[in-house]
Amino acid sequence: MNIFRNSLLVVICLSFFSCNKETTEQKVSEGIISNISLERVEPPNWFIGFKDTSLQLLVKEDNIGAATPKITYNGVSITKVNKAKSPNYLFIDLEISTTTKPGKFDISFNYDDGSKKTHTYELKLREKSAESYEGFDNSDAIYLITPDRFTNADESNDRLPNLKDQSLDRTDGYKRHGGDLQGIINGVDYISDLGFTAVWPTPVLTNDMPQGSYHGYAITDYYQVDPRFGTLEDYKNLSKKLKDKGMKLIMDQVANHCGLEHWWMKDLPFNDWVNDQKNYEDYIDNWTYKVTKFSNHRRTTNQDLYASKSDRKGNNEGWFVEGMPDLNQRNPFLAKYIIQNSIWWIETLGLGGIRQDTYPYPDKDFMSDWAGAIMKEYPNFSIVGEEWSYNPLLVGYWQKGSKNKDGYESNLKSTMDFPMQKAIIEGVNENETWGTGLVKIYEALANDFSYATPEDIMIFLDNHDEGRMFTALNEDATKAKMALSYMLMLPRIPQIYYGTEFLMDDTSNHGDHGLIRTDFPGGWKGDKINAFTGVGLSSEKKEMQSFVKTILNYRKNSEAIIHGKTLHFAPLDGVYMLFRISENETVVHIINKNNQPITVDLGRFKEVGLDGKTLNNIVTGEDFIWNNTLELTQKGSLIFSTKI
Amino acid sequence: MNIFRNSLLVVICLSFFSCNKETTEQKVSEGIISNISLERVEPPNWFIGFKDTSLQLLVKEDNIGAATPKITYNGVSITKVNKAKSPNYLFIDLEISTTTKPGKFDISFNYDDGSKKTHTYELKLREKSAESYEGFDNSDAIYLITPDRFTNADESNDRLPNLKDQSLDRTDGYKRHGGDLQGIINGVDYISDLGFTAVWPTPVLTNDMPQGSYHGYAITDYYQVDPRFGTLEDYKNLSKKLKDKGMKLIMDQVANHCGLEHWWMKDLPFNDWVNDQKNYEDYIDNWTYKVTKFSNHRRTTNQDLYASKSDRKGNNEGWFVEGMPDLNQRNPFLAKYIIQNSIWWIETLGLGGIRQDTYPYPDKDFMSDWAGAIMKEYPNFSIVGEEWSYNPLLVGYWQKGSKNKDGYESNLKSTMDFPMQKAIIEGVNENETWGTGLVKIYEALANDFSYATPEDIMIFLDNHDEGRMFTALNEDATKAKMALSYMLMLPRIPQIYYGTEFLMDDTSNHGDHGLIRTDFPGGWKGDKINAFTGVGLSSEKKEMQSFVKTILNYRKNSEAIIHGKTLHFAPLDGVYMLFRISENETVVHIINKNNQPITVDLGRFKEVGLDGKTLNNIVTGEDFIWNNTLELTQKGSLIFSTKI
Repeated sequence: MNIFRNSLLVVICLSFFSCNKETTEQKVSEGIISNISLERVEPPNWFIGFKDTSLQLLVKEDNIGAATPKITYNGVSITKVNKAKSPNYLFIDLEISTTTKPGKFDISFNYDDGSKKTHTYELKLREKSAESYEGFDNSDAIYLITPDRFTNADESNDRLPNLKDQSLDRTDGYKRHGGDLQGIINGVDYISDLGFTAVWPTPVLTNDMPQGSYHGYAITDYYQVDPRFGTLEDYKNLSKKLKDKGMKLIMDQVANHCGLEHWWMKDLPFNDWVNDQKNYEDYIDNWTYKVTKFSNHRRTTNQDLYASKSDRKGNNEGWFVEGMPDLNQRNPFLAKYIIQNSIWWIETLGLGGIRQDTYPYPDKDFMSDWAGAIMKEYPNFSIVGEEWSYNPLLVGYWQKGSKNKDGYESNLKSTMDFPMQKAIIEGVNENETWGTGLVKIYEALANDFSYATPEDIMIFLDNHDEGRMFTALNEDATKAKMALSYMLMLPRIPQIYYGTEFLMDDTSNHGDHGLIRTDFPGGWKGDKINAFTGVGLSSEKKEMQSFVKTILNYRKNSEAIIHGKTLHFAPLDGVYMLFRISENETVVHIINKNNQPITVDLGRFKEVGLDGKTLNNIVTGEDFIWNNTLELTQKGSLIFSTKI
Repeated sequence: MNIFRNSLLVVICLSFFSCNKETTEQKVSEGIISNISLERVEPPNWFIGFKDTSLQLLVKEDNIGAATPKITYNGVSITKVNKAKSPNYLFIDLEISTTTKPGKFDISFNYDDGSKKTHTYELKLREKSAESYEGFDNSDAIYLITPDRFTNADESNDRLPNLKDQSLDRTDGYKRHGGDLQGIINGVDYISDLGFTAVWPTPVLTNDMPQGSYHGYAITDYYQVDPRFGTLEDYKNLSKKLKDKGMKLIMDQVANHCGLEHWWMKDLPFNDWVNDQKNYEDYIDNWTYKVTKFSNHRRTTNQDLYASKSDRKGNNEGWFVEGMPDLNQRNPFLAKYIIQNSIWWIETLGLGGIRQDTYPYPDKDFMSDWAGAIMKEYPNFSIVGEEWSYNPLLVGYWQKGSKNKDGYESNLKSTMDFPMQKAIIEGVNENETWGTGLVKIYEALANDFSYATPEDIMIFLDNHDEGRMFTALNEDATKAKMALSYMLMLPRIPQIYYGTEFLMDDTSNHGDHGLIRTDFPGGWKGDKINAFTGVGLSSEKKEMQSFVKTILNYRKNSEAIIHGKTLHFAPLDGVYMLFRISENETVVHIINKNNQPITVDLGRFKEVGLDGKTLNNIVTGEDFIWNNTLELTQKGSLIFSTKI
């Protein structure tokens, strides 16, 4: 009976407000109803036309929990008003009917004493169809950037008085260096020329932490661009500039944790908004705090059928580090908040993909819901999740379509190929014996039989957390070329970390985060070396840059590399050959580990069908006729193509 | 039309012979038809009542290819006579109708010149129902024996003049030592007392090789027990003695290769009976030979979707070693021969399982057919295949029920857990750090999520090929107990190599095959040390023997270990706990790596539900009440049970 009465009420209200919409808006514009800006209403706006017609607004304002919200807009109805534990929040469930028109409307918050606050909310028109949001795939090559370390285009935003971290210091790897979004925008031509088709900057949302948050993973406001990186407009401009070049913008998102200085930490809406919340609150004392439970980092508990509940909890509910409160995605309001936040950014920026941080740490059912919700809205979108494991079983588990024993379906298109990365570095480095060297690469690639869709997995040789590839390969440029060119031939989505294209290193302290994230030379005024222009760059570095450019630009249009079948031959006598084969193109990748000249009998490769064909070395441009034997005069890698 | 005419003929013949059966048999017994024993008819007999009613006889006799075989027995018909390339073979396809009675009958071979040879063949009654052939499972504990090295009960068969190898020499690890089947029979009481429920001797079929075949893997006659090991009767007696003790006999079979001196190698029936046959035949010159193609041992080609045909062929069709011709299971007659041979042995010995050697080397479709054929006849049987790989993806691929991308279904119940073996040895040996030590074991067990049925996988710490566990653990008896007791708690089928129960080692040359397979002390007349009786055994060894005995005998009747659920907790502070839990029993296994006393807070294990319960140390018999904390005073392993 109550349900019936409420429904009836809604219908009546809807008709009433629908008839009076213009009058209401008129009144607002005329100032009859005063529009007080509330502390926060999030998402700050929404869009019409989603498959999921529900929307949940987080409203933050002193004593807002005592108010009753009302909305008068055609097609928009409040289905439920949820009070929080804190009196200063309301979570309002809205239904946005499919016929709703874009526009602004007021939400009025009415108190028992007759007072009222009003917030103007906007439903925007979506700029393009959901289907046209195309995510990255293996036709792309992704340039990964740590924004603080790429280019400082705007020195005025380097240190801002209203933000806690005042640590600007280029000589310290753990302090802010001043790089910004405009710096990335300025670099797009360089990145595009190199042959990249997508850019993944690590997070650029506000990290208003007192120190060490230049990396961006301690977000303190999920809806705000960090002013030291620029504005929302800058972020949009970056997306637009990339789009103009036919490139994609990938956003790095963090669902597992926020920064300790996140605005909600001082007034948490519920008792279970963050994990270990009670201990956290007990310990807060004038903002000196002590985390009692860190993650045990036992990530296998996500898969392990024998794992104890306490270890699972320990992994998923412990804090990542002291400055990063662990969000509790099992709180449905937090869960909805994160999902809507992701969708808001996709829509606002026109994203070409999301990279989700620390994938095995949040609640895994939530992660499935999160990815599922996004993929439902944007069927051609892409998300890559970070499972930092060298065990292909774990990497495979997280990928959509994996036939997991526990029935888990991640909805995640792409995972990260840490196992293959390790195998390439080790395989290139090691001496050739029965079980070491190139065979490690060969056998690691063989593991592809276990992945649902190996071509959707992201491969890389280094990133913002792993030591620089050039250092890992003992600063051997020949090895670096072997490794990088091989990686670019794989049925994978390749990612290259900024600077790796010209052999940036972290040799003085391999693996040190500050050093891995060294400033891009030429990104700062007065830099003596400029990798954008080549000024001051050693010939070895220039050659590598040119090598990468040639391969990436070839790869871009290579049917064989993008869609071709993969065929490889077990390493023999220090030579390993990988073939990518499409109807009209065959690409041959050769790694030769021999310091002495060697003649390779091509008879073994007969099944590839190259006998008598002319192949072109895509780096040197030289031709070679595939017949009987191949002379390999020096250690290194070769890439031949039948497409001349 | 021909088909119809042939069918009609068969019907007529059948009716005719059925009416005249007794008359024919009478004639044989009366000597009217002379029964010439042919060189070989294999299988030497068959059985009635199989689901597969076909039987293919290999007949070997000079010029037998020119003869036309006839059979006159009710229910038995010749469906096809297959000539071979060699004139000295016939492959006769028989149909044994389901109503056929057991008995003997003649096969007559009629030549165009009117001459005739006759062979009496027998169809035996099966001793028990197909369903009652129960294979090994995880309620078993398997004792692995190298028969030449276990006990020499019969010195008269140590060196036999009609066999090529005359190398008897106990001081040489690669020569024959004289152990035999009667020796194993004599040891059954010892093995049974220890708590084992199954015995797997490595192959005991004839290896009439000039040297180095004491191990049994170079079979030269698939239907004969090696006379140095004894007779078929001895083999049957072993099976019977085991059965009387409620134990199972597991036969070690080899489908991939035979011994170079196999009788058929001098007159191969077809051009493709063995792989690389042409090159082999070209090179034979007075029995000095040169193999041109060895296996490339690239076993990943079985799974690798990108593997080249030439590498696949290289793995599957190369010879394992020079003295072991690689059988071509794609030849349908060879395939049928191997399948029938396996079934013949199951039926003749009443086997409780088969261990199949070098599983990833034969043609994999054949292996699926082979295992499928056996499992079809014996639905409760068990087969374990050897994939010597530390990659769980490969081990898992071969197991029945694995959801392989290429659709491969192995029909193989059990594989061997080399990955877990390696993890246990490393995990026990290594120092405890974030990523080393016990966590390796913990994470290796977590990989069980990827196996179709982990409880059907065979676990071991050493075997006839891997260096002795005690040596691998630096001759540390405490570590040996940790490793072995842990292994025996796992949801697995445990296998222990003879002598490992009292810490046999290969320390003077770890991994040396001759040394791994050291003689069992007490198995030879005059042995000063006798491990059967304990005479001369060090107290450390005796204690280990007793430790193993206690655990195995407990395990045998433990619902929790056999059928219970598995639960483990990530290692913390050098302590790792594994729980096996059934309705009425919980078993706790604890590994403690600390040299100094440590107090373990039991609060972390609350979910196990042991608080306040009395547990019994199954080794010492001491009781312990599970409450709040557990004091671990010394490094080592502990096993507690709630079943007192």
